[in-house]
Amino acid sequence: MKKITILGSTGSIGTQTLDIINLNKDIQVIGLSTYSNIDLLQEQIHQYQPKKVCVMDPNKAIELKNRLHSKTVEVLTGIEGLIQLATLNEINMVVTAIVGMIGILPTIEAIKASKDIALANKETLVTAGNIIMPLAKEKKVSILPVDSEHCAIFQCLKNEKKDSVKRLILTASGGPFRGKSIQELSKVTLQDALNHPNWSMGKKITIDSATLMNKGLEVIEAKWLFDINMDKIDVIIHPQSIVHSMVEYIDDSIIAQMGNPDMKIPIQYALYYPKRKALKKNAPTQTFGFMDLTFEKPDYQTFRCLELAYEALKIEGTMPTVLNASNEYAVKRFLKKEIHFLDIPTTVEYAMNQHTAIQNPTVDDILETEQWTYDLLERR
Amino acid sequence: MKKITILGSTGSIGTQTLDIINLNKDIQVIGLSTYSNIDLLQEQIHQYQPKKVCVMDPNKAIELKNRLHSKTVEVLTGIEGLIQLATLNEINMVVTAIVGMIGILPTIEAIKASKDIALANKETLVTAGNIIMPLAKEKKVSILPVDSEHCAIFQCLKNEKKDSVKRLILTASGGPFRGKSIQELSKVTLQDALNHPNWSMGKKITIDSATLMNKGLEVIEAKWLFDINMDKIDVIIHPQSIVHSMVEYIDDSIIAQMGNPDMKIPIQYALYYPKRKALKKNAPTQTFGFMDLTFEKPDYQTFRCLELAYEALKIEGTMPTVLNASNEYAVKRFLKKEIHFLDIPTTVEYAMNQHTAIQNPTVDDILETEQWTYDLLERR
Repeated sequence: MKKITILGSTGSIGTQTLDIINLNKDIQVIGLSTYSNIDLLQEQIHQYQPKKVCVMDPNKAIELKNRLHSKTVEVLTGIEGLIQLATLNEINMVVTAIVGMIGILPTIEAIKASKDIALANKETLVTAGNIIMPLAKEKKVSILPVDSEHCAIFQCLKNEKKDSVKRLILTASGGPFRGKSIQELSKVTLQDALNHPNWSMGKKITIDSATLMNKGLEVIEAKWLFDINMDKIDVIIHPQSIVHSMVEYIDDSIIAQMGNPDMKIPIQYALYYPKRKALKKNAPTQTFGFMDLTFEKPDYQTFRCLELAYEALKIEGTMPTVLNASNEYAVKRFLKKEIHFLDIPTTVEYAMNQHTAIQNPTVDDILETEQWTYDLLERR
Repeated sequence: MKKITILGSTGSIGTQTLDIINLNKDIQVIGLSTYSNIDLLQEQIHQYQPKKVCVMDPNKAIELKNRLHSKTVEVLTGIEGLIQLATLNEINMVVTAIVGMIGILPTIEAIKASKDIALANKETLVTAGNIIMPLAKEKKVSILPVDSEHCAIFQCLKNEKKDSVKRLILTASGGPFRGKSIQELSKVTLQDALNHPNWSMGKKITIDSATLMNKGLEVIEAKWLFDINMDKIDVIIHPQSIVHSMVEYIDDSIIAQMGNPDMKIPIQYALYYPKRKALKKNAPTQTFGFMDLTFEKPDYQTFRCLELAYEALKIEGTMPTVLNASNEYAVKRFLKKEIHFLDIPTTVEYAMNQHTAIQNPTVDDILETEQWTYDLLERR
């Protein structure tokens, strides 16, 4: 039986991962973690009986410890706790569904301990792809992408030769503001931005979808995950989110992966890879029905974040870390209604302009650059 | 260097195969054949210097022999000639681009002689799939489909497990009469039927596209080629012919192969499989651009041929031979303007109703059933 740790089990990906496990009953949950949502974690402990859990917030960790009558669950805290969960002897796989750069170190340690990674933490590859991918190769560990786009490309590349690839085509829904002008964007509210047309996701990623930064981060991830030059990675707007992404080959063949916009499909694909498993809920009818599929060019001028991501990837080194950290900072403030939607790209651009990238960064370089970015923007 | 025979080198697939070979200069042409187009065959002999050619029409074969000054090319005739070409010691592959059931015997002999088959002859699998596929398996011979739909499915199934497949989805353009009612169809002319919106092909297959019989024959081929039950093979109308076909998996993932409607893509795929090769003519721009892709249900009531093909497949045995032969007969007469467009399905249905299928037919059974069908329809 596969045994896993889920880092970030109370978030959107974490809970959906547990839903799949609950339906199939063929994966054992050994470790779970949350930032501070101990109510939900307590329910998950009750249902899945993990051996160890980690609560990032130390006060909440103590509170949970006091709440739990059973002594069968060990409650850990902090980054050390995450690392311990990610490297437990008995597990084969870590689902990194944690949000933020806090995911990098546990992922690295999990790879060193030869655990396969179901990767849902964007920051890991965006900021530390240069460290993660060679390490995974060395340790013969599979990095299985848990998002619809990279999972699609992963499937489309299956058993194809790398030199046959002409380009990767990441699809983007365009978010709630597709087709809007800068002037229209200057009037949008937080509520507008949170209203994604196709996908139900966490708040941070929903805002990133509205700015197209999400697609920019995915371009950077794709570069590392598939070891492919950025000039071979294109983005195409596809409002229906049915074609999850495509690979174009040198013989002009395009292989696309399609399906309903349902995160359970890529989560399950990663959990059971290389085996495909029926989604129990599914009906035997048409998956995509007879919907019209449309495609448009992204508007790089209006949605600056996508362009900025390509720029960061071009500069490489620690620049994607600055892109990511400044975006995280800006989105946090936007979610608190402290800044406006259009201030997000401006903030990112400001931080990138102030930064001189360190090439081939170490984890310390990356984490220091993250801190540098926050400090810079706090001082601003 | 790969060495090949092309059966039917003067037809649409044959000439496009030679175009690809001419561009790449890495495949040697050993054998060529034509029914009676000795003018074009003579040009091809001059350009590709095959060792042997076959002209089906014996008078034309003699005429060609007299025309050729060189003694380096041996001119054969008849089915024996085709079989000799298909089994030459030095070749690795036979492209069966010949039209009609005449293709069956040379294909069987080629497989027995361990030649890979680039299969463009529809009749082979439609009528003799029960003989061809087990033989190919026994001889460890690759049957590489040379048409856009099966080539698409072949690519989408690459390295996937058979029990993961939920269904194959063959796309059909719908032909020039998509959306038309029976009443409207009763007024169409030969010229209307020959005017295919997307594909430039031979006359027979163009008419078969207009009646949807082409798609019906492809459903039967798919059953044999991919060893899959007919209730797992669906047809969907996709007027743009960009998605060439799809496979839906049990996890609700759909893998699709897309591209421009260009027969050179599947021909080249079969010639060089498993290697992908750049189409030399191609520009590095978007293959499918930003075209909208639409999908609709086929109209089985109005386009009876598709339904009849499913019925023939359900009955199996020699019934698909009757379907194919009666369709061939009817299309021939339609091309001579002797019958009307709507007489095509009526003719097929009449022949099928008269026939009692022989199960697990031999080649003789199949060829006799073909003759029986012609005789039946001549007598009518």
